[in-house]
Amino acid sequence: MLTRTSTQSLTTQLAERFAERIRTRLLAPGARLPSVRECARQQGVSPHTVVAAYDQLLAQGLVEARRQRGFFVRDAAPAAAAPEARTTRESALGGAMLSSGVPADASSLIRGMFHRQSDKPQPGMGVFPPDWMDSTFMPTSLRRLTSTRALQEISLQYGEPAGDSALRRSLSQKLIGTNIPAGPEQILTTIGATHALDIVSRTLLRAGDPVMVEEPGWAIEFARLEALGMRILPVPRRADGPDLAVMAQYCETHKPKLFVSVSVLHNPTGYSLTPGSAHRVLQLANQHDFHIVEDDTYSHLAPEHATRLCALDGLQRTIYVSGFAKILAPNWRIGFLAAPPALFGRLLETKLLATLTTPALFERALAWCIDQGQLRRHAERVRLRLDGARARTVKLALAHGCRFESEPAGLFGWVDTGVDTDALTQRMLDEGYLLAPGSLFHARRPPSTLMRINFATAQDAAFWKVFGRVRG
Amino acid sequence: MLTRTSTQSLTTQLAERFAERIRTRLLAPGARLPSVRECARQQGVSPHTVVAAYDQLLAQGLVEARRQRGFFVRDAAPAAAAPEARTTRESALGGAMLSSGVPADASSLIRGMFHRQSDKPQPGMGVFPPDWMDSTFMPTSLRRLTSTRALQEISLQYGEPAGDSALRRSLSQKLIGTNIPAGPEQILTTIGATHALDIVSRTLLRAGDPVMVEEPGWAIEFARLEALGMRILPVPRRADGPDLAVMAQYCETHKPKLFVSVSVLHNPTGYSLTPGSAHRVLQLANQHDFHIVEDDTYSHLAPEHATRLCALDGLQRTIYVSGFAKILAPNWRIGFLAAPPALFGRLLETKLLATLTTPALFERALAWCIDQGQLRRHAERVRLRLDGARARTVKLALAHGCRFESEPAGLFGWVDTGVDTDALTQRMLDEGYLLAPGSLFHARRPPSTLMRINFATAQDAAFWKVFGRVRG
Repeated sequence: MLTRTSTQSLTTQLAERFAERIRTRLLAPGARLPSVRECARQQGVSPHTVVAAYDQLLAQGLVEARRQRGFFVRDAAPAAAAPEARTTRESALGGAMLSSGVPADASSLIRGMFHRQSDKPQPGMGVFPPDWMDSTFMPTSLRRLTSTRALQEISLQYGEPAGDSALRRSLSQKLIGTNIPAGPEQILTTIGATHALDIVSRTLLRAGDPVMVEEPGWAIEFARLEALGMRILPVPRRADGPDLAVMAQYCETHKPKLFVSVSVLHNPTGYSLTPGSAHRVLQLANQHDFHIVEDDTYSHLAPEHATRLCALDGLQRTIYVSGFAKILAPNWRIGFLAAPPALFGRLLETKLLATLTTPALFERALAWCIDQGQLRRHAERVRLRLDGARARTVKLALAHGCRFESEPAGLFGWVDTGVDTDALTQRMLDEGYLLAPGSLFHARRPPSTLMRINFATAQDAAFWKVFGRVRG
Repeated sequence: MLTRTSTQSLTTQLAERFAERIRTRLLAPGARLPSVRECARQQGVSPHTVVAAYDQLLAQGLVEARRQRGFFVRDAAPAAAAPEARTTRESALGGAMLSSGVPADASSLIRGMFHRQSDKPQPGMGVFPPDWMDSTFMPTSLRRLTSTRALQEISLQYGEPAGDSALRRSLSQKLIGTNIPAGPEQILTTIGATHALDIVSRTLLRAGDPVMVEEPGWAIEFARLEALGMRILPVPRRADGPDLAVMAQYCETHKPKLFVSVSVLHNPTGYSLTPGSAHRVLQLANQHDFHIVEDDTYSHLAPEHATRLCALDGLQRTIYVSGFAKILAPNWRIGFLAAPPALFGRLLETKLLATLTTPALFERALAWCIDQGQLRRHAERVRLRLDGARARTVKLALAHGCRFESEPAGLFGWVDTGVDTDALTQRMLDEGYLLAPGSLFHARRPPSTLMRINFATAQDAAFWKVFGRVRG
């Protein structure tokens, strides 16, 4: 990655690479830089170059030298010298992890997932690569609404608080097709599924409330609940569903208000809920009077007959959440929730307080994609292609000494690498690859030998070759 | 409004009108329906028709009869019979007001502002009517980005966490032009100014924290802070700025963390901050170590040289918030904040947790509107037109016995009607007009004879004629 033909010296290139990671917190405060010898070997430069680069970082106040121990990212990064950083509470995503000295915090890794690290396919990404989402119907759907008159009609008023009514009708039809009885008046559009989950948490919980979340699970869900001040009760996720014994115990001792579940093609394991498990989860919810939010983000990659809590429950104490980032267009930021009528007004209020309305242009374009059957056909094509990619990736991973923790399914593989994946992530970054280490999927972020791979972006032999070399 | 030629009987029409208001909570639980005699007079129907309509509402379980006292909206609306409504906390916007029996709650009035009540101009609205926002450059700016290739580039990845970089560059230039030193790396785009204010509150405060808010002020700000569990410290807003004596006292006794201020063209009074007052507010903030979020939503209607806290402070302990709903396109939902570097990372994290990214299509289109000077010229035209509308509205209001509580300026007039405006709002709804009663602009919603009028939508003699008749 360092180039001798660059106009910058190798020293400056190396120093800037570390500086960038410190700024973006891919190297968090308190993290140790590699030893001079290790760094020289990794980067293929002389120890002298590394020493000079570390000196530059020292001079910039980004790192400090600790006697006999090496170089560490400064706890007080330059910006933190201002009084603001001390008077306010700790970083929502990073705060809890700083003291543990974990080299990269959740926030930076999540942010990294939204930036191209390089032109290489990124196995740690949470979405399909853009070329998988190529379609002619997406641009067509939007251009149908870009006449001056149509744009004015859509743009010049706040729009409907619950979301575009055409989309809510389409979504209602779609849900009824999967046996989830949601009328348009029970559907609320949001800025992606993330916003829907945020609205549900803010409406049903207040700071200090206990909430059950599947573990492993998605880092942003843990981080958001933590930032909102909730008490997270992690429920181990099994192949057939959440661990019911653990849930029952939490119910007795903590009286949780909410259970957050990715029932179908769970992230990161790919597990899908069985009907029996679904039934027992709902029994528990009725007995102990908690709500369930079912995050069906991967619905388009799953068979239609997959078991969903909301279908069994008929949206009595369940709230359904999904979105279109994984199948149509991540930046359109369209998500939605479907809720029991008794909760709808309060969820709508929370949406108004958080963002007022949502952009109707994308919502109406999406409605057309659904109504014309375009989205369904596109999803079928993507599923077929993903099946092929998954088969290839599984072979490559096994050939490189990895083991699958769960039966490969859906978009993600949950893979045991045999080595600590936090450290591996740092080393792979040097090679231009972003990984998603196992620690990211746990509330407390313990070290882990697991990582999540994206089947669509990890079917590349070049990645596995580098992986094999770096892991050693 | 009731029509004898309709296919529905007058009774059913009247019952449905009340049912609709109960469902949308324009008539809140506990509110009393007008007496039969009063309702008959208001609607121009026989008392018999009213009794029959009220009987329908009784049969539907929407109202209850209390002996000697009349008909009341049921505390437990039909949906509330489900267990969900009892196990979770009270309505964020409505909860505090139910016991007081105020006829319309803040939530419903706010929601009402996003729905067309009728084809009549709506003096209670918070934005310009769509025809004021007509422009050719808005559709042009968007169509520049709708080629298949451009749409794919924008849509098929999550996009930059902080927001489209073209827009952040344009906004930076714009802010520097008003002496607010914000680089693109200090700017975060949001789903309207509302989302920006939400992000600031969630980042800097935790439940129970004291926060100073100007009063009168915008209902959504009060409601959001209340829903987040903050302790609201209302600061009386004077013509020159916030009441400094009250602020100083709060600082001594409550140690507030944040002050929320609409410094320029304050909503609803139209007041703008003086330099002297700005200086003293900042002194207080430095002395007592609190942050200030300056909500400059009406910036495009104000002269460029207006005094802004962020300009004096240089974004040290101030955070700047603004948006484009009031001048370009409410449904594009573009807002932003500019923050001190030390706070930026944490604000960005909160954005990611709440919505991940924001739609780049609108952001990039807006950047073009700014860079081409189109938005500036459009704002000049709107300001001129508003000056004319304001002059006409002021004349009409004065002629109908109203008094201006503050010097008319900007988009809103703060008007004393001499009668209780909560009751007036209910009566005007029967005539198809939505008002914004004074109670909406206070944290505790006390009865008020004031109301906020939108100068652009209240320059209509027909409205004032009805107003004069209904007020009596």
